Amino acid sequence: MANIFSNIPAEIADEIFEDIIMTETLRVERIISKGQTSPESGWYDQSENEWLIVLSGYGIIEYINGVKVILKQGDYLNIKAHEKHRVIETSLDEATVWLAIFY
Amino acid sequence: MANIFSNIPAEIADEIFEDIIMTETLRVERIISKGQTSPESGWYDQSENEWLIVLSGYGIIEYINGVKVILKQGDYLNIKAHEKHRVIETSLDEATVWLAIFY
Repeated sequence: MANIFSNIPAEIADEIFEDIIMTETLRVERIISKGQTSPESGWYDQSENEWLIVLSGYGIIEYINGVKVILKQGDYLNIKAHEKHRVIETSLDEATVWLAIFY
Repeated sequence: MANIFSNIPAEIADEIFEDIIMTETLRVERIISKGQTSPESGWYDQSENEWLIVLSGYGIIEYINGVKVILKQGDYLNIKAHEKHRVIETSLDEATVWLAIFY
């Protein structure tokens, strides 16, 4: 057993990506952010679908069509493969813990 | 967008199982319990692996070898296919919200 809120460093210089489950068809990641955003140039353009939930903190996702979605605790979103998106804001005060299912 | 803590009835006569993602190789479910346990006779004996996290409330899982694991908020567990287990207790005071990934 482990806890999704454990082992979160006080200082988070770079976003932390950790695999929780990895099979041929599935990847589950814990992502920890604290103020980080996607690189300026960077839209995520993924070959897999991504289901994303915020478990603490908050994050704002922007789609390439300009739509912005604020995700707070418990909010989840399904991002289809090749739906270009990026993270434009995450909580500075507390760590944002994301659980992401790539499938 | 939706929220994992939304639409939880005040009265939960039976456990609630809802599919969030369903593909040929993956099923993600929200499960809501309030005091329910597995049927007396019932050990879960699943053909799929199950990754399970408690997002609110708590639950106690028992394995057939007698090992019991208390899962509180944020605790997660990986139950391999055919590892027989059952739920022997869930929170009576508040709803227990589980996220389960069958893969």
